[in-house]
Amino acid sequence: MRLLLVNPNMTRAMTDTMVAIAAKVAGPEHEIVGLTADRGFPYIASRAESQIAGGIALEMIADNLDGADAVIMAAFGDPGLRGARELFDLPVVGMADAAIMSAAMLGDRFSIVTFSPVMRRWYLDCVRDSGLIDRSAGVRTPHDHPLDVNGVKETLRAELCALARRAVEEDGADVVILGGAPLAGLAQEIAPEVPAIVVDPISAAVAQALALVRIAPGPFSAVRHCKPIAKTSVGLSPSLRSIVGHEPAGG
Amino acid sequence: MRLLLVNPNMTRAMTDTMVAIAAKVAGPEHEIVGLTADRGFPYIASRAESQIAGGIALEMIADNLDGADAVIMAAFGDPGLRGARELFDLPVVGMADAAIMSAAMLGDRFSIVTFSPVMRRWYLDCVRDSGLIDRSAGVRTPHDHPLDVNGVKETLRAELCALARRAVEEDGADVVILGGAPLAGLAQEIAPEVPAIVVDPISAAVAQALALVRIAPGPFSAVRHCKPIAKTSVGLSPSLRSIVGHEPAGG
Amino acid sequence: MRLLLVNPNMTRAMTDTMVAIAAKVAGPEHEIVGLTADRGFPYIASRAESQIAGGIALEMIADNLDGADAVIMAAFGDPGLRGARELFDLPVVGMADAAIMSAAMLGDRFSIVTFSPVMRRWYLDCVRDSGLIDRSAGVRTPHDHPLDVNGVKETLRAELCALARRAVEEDGADVVILGGAPLAGLAQEIAPEVPAIVVDPISAAVAQALALVRIAPGPFSAVRHCKPIAKTSVGLSPSLRSIVGHEPAGG
Amino acid sequence: MRLLLVNPNMTRAMTDTMVAIAAKVAGPEHEIVGLTADRGFPYIASRAESQIAGGIALEMIADNLDGADAVIMAAFGDPGLRGARELFDLPVVGMADAAIMSAAMLGDRFSIVTFSPVMRRWYLDCVRDSGLIDRSAGVRTPHDHPLDVNGVKETLRAELCALARRAVEEDGADVVILGGAPLAGLAQEIAPEVPAIVVDPISAAVAQALALVRIAPGPFSAVRHCKPIAKTSVGLSPSLRSIVGHEPAGG
Amino acid sequence: MRLLLVNPNMTRAMTDTMVAIAAKVAGPEHEIVGLTADRGFPYIASRAESQIAGGIALEMIADNLDGADAVIMAAFGDPGLRGARELFDLPVVGMADAAIMSAAMLGDRFSIVTFSPVMRRWYLDCVRDSGLIDRSAGVRTPHDHPLDVNGVKETLRAELCALARRAVEEDGADVVILGGAPLAGLAQEIAPEVPAIVVDPISAAVAQALALVRIAPGPFSAVRHCKPIAKTSVGLSPSLRSIVGHEPAGG
Amino acid sequence: MRLLLVNPNMTRAMTDTMVAIAAKVAGPEHEIVGLTADRGFPYIASRAESQIAGGIALEMIADNLDGADAVIMAAFGDPGLRGARELFDLPVVGMADAAIMSAAMLGDRFSIVTFSPVMRRWYLDCVRDSGLIDRSAGVRTPHDHPLDVNGVKETLRAELCALARRAVEEDGADVVILGGAPLAGLAQEIAPEVPAIVVDPISAAVAQALALVRIAPGPFSAVRHCKPIAKTSVGLSPSLRSIVGHEPAGG
Repeated sequence: MRLLLVNPNMTRAMTDTMVAIAAKVAGPEHEIVGLTADRGFPYIASRAESQIAGGIALEMIADNLDGADAVIMAAFGDPGLRGARELFDLPVVGMADAAIMSAAMLGDRFSIVTFSPVMRRWYLDCVRDSGLIDRSAGVRTPHDHPLDVNGVKETLRAELCALARRAVEEDGADVVILGGAPLAGLAQEIAPEVPAIVVDPISAAVAQALALVRIAPGPFSAVRHCKPIAKTSVGLSPSLRSIVGHEPAGG
Repeated sequence: MRLLLVNPNMTRAMTDTMVAIAAKVAGPEHEIVGLTADRGFPYIASRAESQIAGGIALEMIADNLDGADAVIMAAFGDPGLRGARELFDLPVVGMADAAIMSAAMLGDRFSIVTFSPVMRRWYLDCVRDSGLIDRSAGVRTPHDHPLDVNGVKETLRAELCALARRAVEEDGADVVILGGAPLAGLAQEIAPEVPAIVVDPISAAVAQALALVRIAPGPFSAVRHCKPIAKTSVGLSPSLRSIVGHEPAGG
Repeated sequence: MRLLLVNPNMTRAMTDTMVAIAAKVAGPEHEIVGLTADRGFPYIASRAESQIAGGIALEMIADNLDGADAVIMAAFGDPGLRGARELFDLPVVGMADAAIMSAAMLGDRFSIVTFSPVMRRWYLDCVRDSGLIDRSAGVRTPHDHPLDVNGVKETLRAELCALARRAVEEDGADVVILGGAPLAGLAQEIAPEVPAIVVDPISAAVAQALALVRIAPGPFSAVRHCKPIAKTSVGLSPSLRSIVGHEPAGG
Repeated sequence: MRLLLVNPNMTRAMTDTMVAIAAKVAGPEHEIVGLTADRGFPYIASRAESQIAGGIALEMIADNLDGADAVIMAAFGDPGLRGARELFDLPVVGMADAAIMSAAMLGDRFSIVTFSPVMRRWYLDCVRDSGLIDRSAGVRTPHDHPLDVNGVKETLRAELCALARRAVEEDGADVVILGGAPLAGLAQEIAPEVPAIVVDPISAAVAQALALVRIAPGPFSAVRHCKPIAKTSVGLSPSLRSIVGHEPAGG
Repeated sequence: MRLLLVNPNMTRAMTDTMVAIAAKVAGPEHEIVGLTADRGFPYIASRAESQIAGGIALEMIADNLDGADAVIMAAFGDPGLRGARELFDLPVVGMADAAIMSAAMLGDRFSIVTFSPVMRRWYLDCVRDSGLIDRSAGVRTPHDHPLDVNGVKETLRAELCALARRAVEEDGADVVILGGAPLAGLAQEIAPEVPAIVVDPISAAVAQALALVRIAPGPFSAVRHCKPIAKTSVGLSPSLRSIVGHEPAGG
Repeated sequence: MRLLLVNPNMTRAMTDTMVAIAAKVAGPEHEIVGLTADRGFPYIASRAESQIAGGIALEMIADNLDGADAVIMAAFGDPGLRGARELFDLPVVGMADAAIMSAAMLGDRFSIVTFSPVMRRWYLDCVRDSGLIDRSAGVRTPHDHPLDVNGVKETLRAELCALARRAVEEDGADVVILGGAPLAGLAQEIAPEVPAIVVDPISAAVAQALALVRIAPGPFSAVRHCKPIAKTSVGLSPSLRSIVGHEPAGG
């Protein structure tokens, strides 16, 4: 299969790290196509930024749909996810959504641990939007925003471990999700130190993308009832305009 | 006061109708500044379109903030509302949100009546996002999408009246909201034919904008805890980029 | 407009303070009519007291309806609110309800800060009855009931500020409501010290009363479906008996 | 035991019917003391009426507490229930609350069937206030308000049976509650015609009063944390004033 | 009446203690038949154990139905409760369910206090399954699992008292349930030390069993709509097989 | 990988059909081990049956754990799922749970369509237990229980298609789950006739099992905090007794 890994942030190094982890999870028989936003923000951390980056992500998907089997929205927070699912005729997986749903299949209650208090509110929105807020045991973060987001996997390792243990022992989590792209890959490392199942969101997203294609291979029915009706538009990329307008592909 | 009425749709006639109603509700001592999107869609009707239009709306607001006391997001569905509230230091009112909250202060349960089944799902999302889904008595619409959206206020008048009565008598609504910009102003006309309170969303939005400025006049505290931290960005309008970057105004 | 400010408590000084704030919010073109209960309790602080005071409030409203455009139930806790909305053909605003709904239009999550742990349970009931419990970030109060309720605006100022800051920083509130009539007017004073929007309930109630009259001017439809059917009664004030009995006005 | 059966309606015949059923359920070793309101309404059917009748009920209880082991609020809708539980140091049972809780112990989902559409909204409030709305399968009523409320047990028998069967077969109820004092005793009669368990609320209230006294015999701890603090009052009956003021009994 | 007290644990001493308390609550006119599991676990403390013990409990009930008026599932956690209510034509009471429902009739919010953190998750499931999670003020337990479960009523007395007081004062509980069979009877002892109503689950279960038989005496309608359709089976005890197969009794 | 497909029903033909579908979904590089219950029921359709079958399933898993990578509980309704997840140190997938979670990742709202009204209540329990009831658009079934469960895939094909279309068009489902083992494989066949995504639960379960092993390969941490503490037991199969007792494997 061919999976689009759509990073709606502008930081290419983040995309590269995620593609590497994704490739390892997917194995050599699947292709991971990494895409990095060419406008927007270096790193999204709020709903305002997510509003804008989500629109950009829709264009990134539309421009690269050809031959794709599934799409991974590769930012924890899943900008544009609901709209993409309406619009495109293939499975679209959100990194937060996939991690949350997977966690809910692995245990009863899950917590999210992340590297900055700034993300808490946005991540809680994700849990709420997923519908699984009643199975959430909360979000735990360090008290302050880190000086340098890029190195947190190393600089905050001990603190994140401690937070994960508290999520298990005090909040009752069976499963801990390490949220946020800068923590990609950390779950596997600290799992032995946490008395629970630890989930890496990018791994979850890849595994769920492969699963959903098995369950519901695209292209989905052209007459999907929930699809927006055809619309004219101004200022969208040609491929997105064409999809929004229900124009025949390659027209 | 000076209220920005931001229509994230491209149809200027819709903006003009809404500005006229708004001016009548606000009275001559307040100024209504109508803004119409110059890209995007003629009429938004889905979450995918709302994702894109919401980003456009953020730019429209940023470009016109100067001297404004409050912002009205003038599309039922409120694209970009959450992000705008994080970002801008003045009250931001959503047309659906204002209608829903007002309805909940006028009676116990409210229904939404609109002109097309296509809007149902998106409008239900608005109710859910407001938090008041438990006080909702549902959304009622005609069975089919109308051939011409612009004339529905006349062509569907009788059917919309009948739907409103059923919302009251069968679903138990105390208050009926006539949702969707093409119905702006209809509430006042059909109120005598409906055994309930009937709410016009653009009137509700204007009244709430005036109310919120009385309650919490901007500019809000510069240190609002929920505000996104400063971000660099690429490709945003200069004014939005400046706000997102926490640059000093007029810098 | 003419707004009835119905204080279901017997403390006239409280009514006077609230009328003064209300007049300032409403401006000179609107009339505020303050009414103080002549029986019941000096200050309501429980559901038992609210049950009794709510019945008294219905009589106070019925006796003073003539020429009124809207009613403000001027006790945080809103005794009698639901019943009044069923019975009277004009907007009825609750002080807690108005503050909660306004807060939910100003930000995502709101907290209530008040001066005594005794009020916590009753105020939480208000949030729950409003339907917005999922957007609440909790109620914070000092640990003990104050010796003198009347002076709390001064004696507890520093502690209430600190509680408001904790509501923002620890509980994630975007908006803080200062609940309870003895705190009327404090919000405006401490706003600069709190990194969030601070809401004064009596200001919110006045602003919402003006807004709701714009949206749904009374007298409401005589055939409102949700109105109680005509009832005979014994022991009610003549005006309330007449309204409950659907007797023609002035009959 | 001595159970106060407090009918907050003024119709003595209703009290007598309920006392007769109650005595049969309780058996000869328990005493049922029937009390009928001497002001208020012949039959309560709305929240406005419930607000007033609930205050009257608090006085009726306070005036007759001497020697009582438990109180039954003998109107489906439970006016004054929450306040009474705060105030009095013995179990207070609501007729709707007892029926709902009992139904939830007899099966998974319950429905309420009653004789008039006028009661629907108030009864749904009761279910919601109980906390068990998620286990409710709805409220079913005839389409029109009956001409004569007193005879409905006979005149509407067939229709109520049919509604109960539909509640079971279409709505999935395991248990059907026949709500409303005029239906007292009907459950036992129609049970053989309904493929479910049928609950009579006054029987449920009596049985629950006896149960709660076994579980938590009064007088409850004088230092109950949830009890309102002492209050002065004006215009209450002497016994209620004394209780509200924490005056020593018999003082 | 004849009440089956079904202990799905294998510890006969626990059954004996509970039968003694039950007999005292029920009084001499009612018979308590204690049954102890002859396979399974000494003491159930998880959902896995509850899954198995619940099946065993169904057989214990089926084997002893003759002449019984009601069944008490005598383990806090209520293994097999839902299934038993579907299957058997008489009231089936769960110890946790009865305590929770009774608590909700005695006050607004209830807490559970128990002797080991190991039970927390399973007890919270019970509250959730009852539907009353919104009225729960939480579960409080000591930090560690006790060395010896049998003596906890004495060894942990002071700590359990302190936890109960914190549940009242910090969490806002009106009613405290002492959960877990090893605490049977403790509620009555510590009630004077707790500023709230304290509920003993086995007493609650007995009182509720007597109440439900008054409200809905078995045998229930043979055509109960919610009853499973007839099934063949292999490996069940003869009496359970016969009930599952809808075979005529005594056939 | 080696996946245990545990059919807690006694019908081997059902197991064979499911294994065939599972093998096709998993591909030749994975092994599917089908297990059929040797006691219990031919086909589970209620909570009572699920209680018993769930205990049997735990033994079936314990007896076949050796070399397994994941477990599929192959009955829609997922008997024993929660307990199995506590007990065993590898991913355990429920057929209903996997279908529901997958549906929630493919669209916003999902419906279940099944072949008999008898299953409705049990399936709704599954949705509720998953936590996703707010994203459910309901369960649709034929009016009557079919005479022969085995042939429903052919005899009810047209009716099930019609029900699926109504779930989409009237209830607003984006995704339709065809629930119940006798419908295994039907989803793929009728998908072209339904304007939505159609999910086959056994395919979903296999795909999710593979996904969860990628995300969280067993054996899980021996110190998982949520695991039941060691227990002695009587009457369990030797392998289950050993796991419950925390005995060293192969001991």
